[in-house]
Amino acid sequence: MIHLQTPALLVDGAALEHNLATMSAALPGPRLRPHVKAHKCTELARRQGEGGHAGFTCATMRECEGMAAAGLGGDLMLANEVADARRLGALVAMNKAVRVTLAVDSEATIEAAAAGGVRDVVIDVNVGLPRCGCAPEDAGTLASLARAKGLNVRGVMGYEGHVVGVEDRSIRESSTADCMKLLLAAHSDVGGELISAGGTGTYDINTWATEIQAGSYALMDTAYGHLDLPFRQALAVLATVISVSPGYAVADCGLKALGMDHGNPTISNATVFFCSDEHVTFIPDEGSPVKVGDQIRVVPAHIDPTVAYHERMHITDGDDVLETCPVDLRGW
Amino acid sequence: MIHLQTPALLVDGAALEHNLATMSAALPGPRLRPHVKAHKCTELARRQGEGGHAGFTCATMRECEGMAAAGLGGDLMLANEVADARRLGALVAMNKAVRVTLAVDSEATIEAAAAGGVRDVVIDVNVGLPRCGCAPEDAGTLASLARAKGLNVRGVMGYEGHVVGVEDRSIRESSTADCMKLLLAAHSDVGGELISAGGTGTYDINTWATEIQAGSYALMDTAYGHLDLPFRQALAVLATVISVSPGYAVADCGLKALGMDHGNPTISNATVFFCSDEHVTFIPDEGSPVKVGDQIRVVPAHIDPTVAYHERMHITDGDDVLETCPVDLRGW
Repeated sequence: MIHLQTPALLVDGAALEHNLATMSAALPGPRLRPHVKAHKCTELARRQGEGGHAGFTCATMRECEGMAAAGLGGDLMLANEVADARRLGALVAMNKAVRVTLAVDSEATIEAAAAGGVRDVVIDVNVGLPRCGCAPEDAGTLASLARAKGLNVRGVMGYEGHVVGVEDRSIRESSTADCMKLLLAAHSDVGGELISAGGTGTYDINTWATEIQAGSYALMDTAYGHLDLPFRQALAVLATVISVSPGYAVADCGLKALGMDHGNPTISNATVFFCSDEHVTFIPDEGSPVKVGDQIRVVPAHIDPTVAYHERMHITDGDDVLETCPVDLRGW
Repeated sequence: MIHLQTPALLVDGAALEHNLATMSAALPGPRLRPHVKAHKCTELARRQGEGGHAGFTCATMRECEGMAAAGLGGDLMLANEVADARRLGALVAMNKAVRVTLAVDSEATIEAAAAGGVRDVVIDVNVGLPRCGCAPEDAGTLASLARAKGLNVRGVMGYEGHVVGVEDRSIRESSTADCMKLLLAAHSDVGGELISAGGTGTYDINTWATEIQAGSYALMDTAYGHLDLPFRQALAVLATVISVSPGYAVADCGLKALGMDHGNPTISNATVFFCSDEHVTFIPDEGSPVKVGDQIRVVPAHIDPTVAYHERMHITDGDDVLETCPVDLRGW
C-alpha cells in the first residue's frame, strides 16, 4: 500500500538509476544531450547532469525557462522552431550563464531568431520525418543567411523520428544510415561543431551524430519496450480499484492520466478493456482477482503525453516513496 | 492575430452562450446537473449556475473541492466511486454550505463513504456500460445497507455512456429506453428523489431521469459534432505554423495539447496528417496555403482530455480575447 492520492506517477528508483547509468556509459559526457520533454522534471534532469551531461534538449520555451531557473541552462538546445523568439532572447539576455541554441529551418524562423535576440542556432534538416526541417540541399543557404543576420550557426540537427520506433534492428540500422547520409551532406554545407540527432531507439546505432537527443530511455514506455533496448520500464501510474463486477474491474486511472496516442496502457495479470476520462476498465486474469481498494500499476503506452498530465512524480523503492518531484516543465 | 502564447485553448464566446442557453431552455433548473469534468473551469460552472442550475456533477474529489472553494458547492454529486472518502467528509464538515452526494456501488464503497464522513449517497447502477455501477437487482440491498450505516440515500444514478455517442438517433432512443428501464426498476427498490443519468448525446431523449448529467454540450468536440445536436463547436486550440515544406506544414499543437483517444483533431481547409508531442503535421487544401507565423485553429476530437492539458482557456469574440479563465479543477 502506497499512501498517495491516485492516480499518481510512480518512478521505480532502481530502474531509473539503471537506465541513466546504462545510457551514460554508452554515450558519455557530451555524446548525450538528454531530452527533457519526456519527463518534464528538472530534478530528473539534474540527475542526468550528474551523469556527466552538461547540455540538454528542450521541446518548448517553457522547458528552456524552467531548466534555466533550475540552474541547468548552460547549454540548452530548443530542438524545435518558433515563430516568435523574444522569450528566448530575454532568457539569454537576463542571465549570462544561460545559453540556448535554437533550431531554424526557414528564412522566417531565422528572422524570428535574429529579431528575438537569440544568438545561437542550428539548421534543422529534414532527414525523412515529415515534420520540421529544411530540405538537406537548402541547409547551406540557410546557414549563410543566419550568419549574415549575425547568428552563430553551431551546426545541424536532424531527427530520424520515423526510424527510432522500428522494431527490426537491421532496418533501424540501415534507415538510420540513410538519414544520417542526408544530415552529413547538409553539415558539410553548414559547418559548425554540432551534428545533433537520434533518440532512444537509435542511441547505439546513430554513430554519425556528434550528440544524441534521447529522452524516453530514462523512464521508458511500452512502445519502446517492444524494442531490443537495455532500458527498463521505470514509470507506471498507480491506480486504485474502485469497482468490481463479474468479469471486469475498474480503477481510477483514465484518459486524463494517460497519453493515449499509442493505444491502451497495460496492467500486469490483466487485460485492459477500455479507458474513459477517469477510469480504466480491465479484465483480471484467472487467478488474479482484485477488490475495491487494491492498488494496481498501469503502464502507459507513450510516456511523454502521460507525464504532461501530472503535477508530480514519486520516486519509489517497492512501496516506499523515496522522493516526490514536481513535473515543473509542463505547459508552454 | 491573437496575442497569446500557443498552443492556447480558445472558447468562442457566442457559441458558448448559445450552447448554455439552448441546454437551459431544454432542461431548465434542476432538470440539468451540469457535469464540470468536460471544462474543469469554475468560471464556466458559474455561468451554468446563472442559467438556473444549482446542482453540479463532478468526476473527482478535486473537482468537488474546487467547486466548493468557488462557492458553487451547494449540491454537488460525485458521480464516481472512491475507495477512501475522507477528503469528501472533511469538505462537508468544514463548510455547512457544501453538500456532496457520492456514488456508491458496493459494500466496500458504502463502508468508505460512511467511514469517511460522507452524509449523502446515490446508488450507482450499471445500465449497460461496462464500468462502475452495481447490478440493477442489487441496488435495493445496497440502499438498505447504506441506510443501516446512517447514510442518506438520495436515489440512483446510471449513466448510459455506451449510448450517448450512437449516431443513429432511433437506436439512441431505443437503447436509452432499455437502459432507463433498468434504472427505474432499481429506483423502485431504492427510493429517493433522484434518478440521475444522461449526457449530451441523450439530453432530450432521456425523459426518465429526473436530472441529466451533461457536460460536453458547453464546449463540444468533433465526436459529438457527428450527432444531430443543436450545440456548436465552441472550443479550439489556437496554434502557430512553425514550419512549411512542399506538401505539408507543421503547427505547435501536439499530443500534449490534445486528447487523442478519439483520434486526430481537425483543421479547416486542411487534412491532419499526424500529431507528435508538440506538433501537428497537416496538409493544407489546394488554394489554402499557410506560412510560418500564421495562426490556425485545431479542433479536438475529444474535449475532456484536451482541456485537462491546459492551464487556462480564453473566451473570444473573433480575434478578441474577452476573458481568460483558469482551468482550475485539474488534477486529483
